[in-house]
Amino acid sequence: MTERPTAAGGTFEPWDHGFSLWFTGLSGAGKSTVANEVAAALRGRGHRVEILDGDEVREHLSRGLGFSKADRDINVDRIGWVASVLARNGVVAITAAISPYRDTRDAVRAMHDGNFVEIHVATPLEVCEERDVKGLYAKARTGEIPEFTGVSDPYEAPLAPEVVVPTHDRTVAESAALVLEYLDSVGLSAP
Amino acid sequence: MTERPTAAGGTFEPWDHGFSLWFTGLSGAGKSTVANEVAAALRGRGHRVEILDGDEVREHLSRGLGFSKADRDINVDRIGWVASVLARNGVVAITAAISPYRDTRDAVRAMHDGNFVEIHVATPLEVCEERDVKGLYAKARTGEIPEFTGVSDPYEAPLAPEVVVPTHDRTVAESAALVLEYLDSVGLSAP
Repeated sequence: MTERPTAAGGTFEPWDHGFSLWFTGLSGAGKSTVANEVAAALRGRGHRVEILDGDEVREHLSRGLGFSKADRDINVDRIGWVASVLARNGVVAITAAISPYRDTRDAVRAMHDGNFVEIHVATPLEVCEERDVKGLYAKARTGEIPEFTGVSDPYEAPLAPEVVVPTHDRTVAESAALVLEYLDSVGLSAP
Repeated sequence: MTERPTAAGGTFEPWDHGFSLWFTGLSGAGKSTVANEVAAALRGRGHRVEILDGDEVREHLSRGLGFSKADRDINVDRIGWVASVLARNGVVAITAAISPYRDTRDAVRAMHDGNFVEIHVATPLEVCEERDVKGLYAKARTGEIPEFTGVSDPYEAPLAPEVVVPTHDRTVAESAALVLEYLDSVGLSAP
């Protein structure tokens, strides 16, 4: 348990500052990479952090869902609701789903009592496709993977995200710093 | 934030003791009633408590699911996983799903790193049916509601629950006290 003096003379208790960090962006944009870097930094400052990403989420929340808008919406709704429950209990919930639809992300924002930070990992499609870390874009271009965000399925960029991270212009550490600076500026993170 | 001195001379920090309280039992057994009483007591001791029960869970985790074993299992798995995530982040997660199947409850237990407390609200069927607070048993008997636990669908009682609460023999406060005494005895609750 980390207690830190604040400028106001009280103590900043990380447990009293739960919130969700909602990373959105194309496949390969770097959402998980930046999310993990931010998570490590926040843990170091005394926050409890849960990353809602990867196999566990796919197994327990997303199983059986496909890539239609309806199924993507259900998936984002479930992840968003779990994030909101963690956030209201003092945890920093970090998500890294593509979450391509603006109205669905806005619905998740509305579940949160103001403690929601939308982070657009704004790596251009061309860069994501050139990286193609998992070889998914190549399969999307041949049609082997249908309904692929950015290629054959829409991605609606946030209109007013709290943070924009253009990963193609900076390192992972620099990208994470943009998020941490925002949290500092609004008093959400331990000083 | 409540810090309390412990017998060992250190402080007991509720945040360091996340766990799940898994209430199981027939419809009308009194799961939610006892769960709410226990939740209030634990909040008073400084724990953060989330009750995973009711409309929010039905809307976000259970929507579209029916009462087949497969669907009940998916529902219990989702609630159980969310409870385990809360518990590992220092929150007391309280659930009150009927959760009729032993193997499914055991799977949820296995998701927890020892921080799982199974509470059998062991009100006999006859008592639940006589209470019939929501009129569900009457509808189950006429067949208007099919697959009703205890009437036309199985309930597998826990073989070795941490706590057994026979609500028909005691008041709500006495029932909650049984749970709190167990938590005290194993050092899970703030002294």
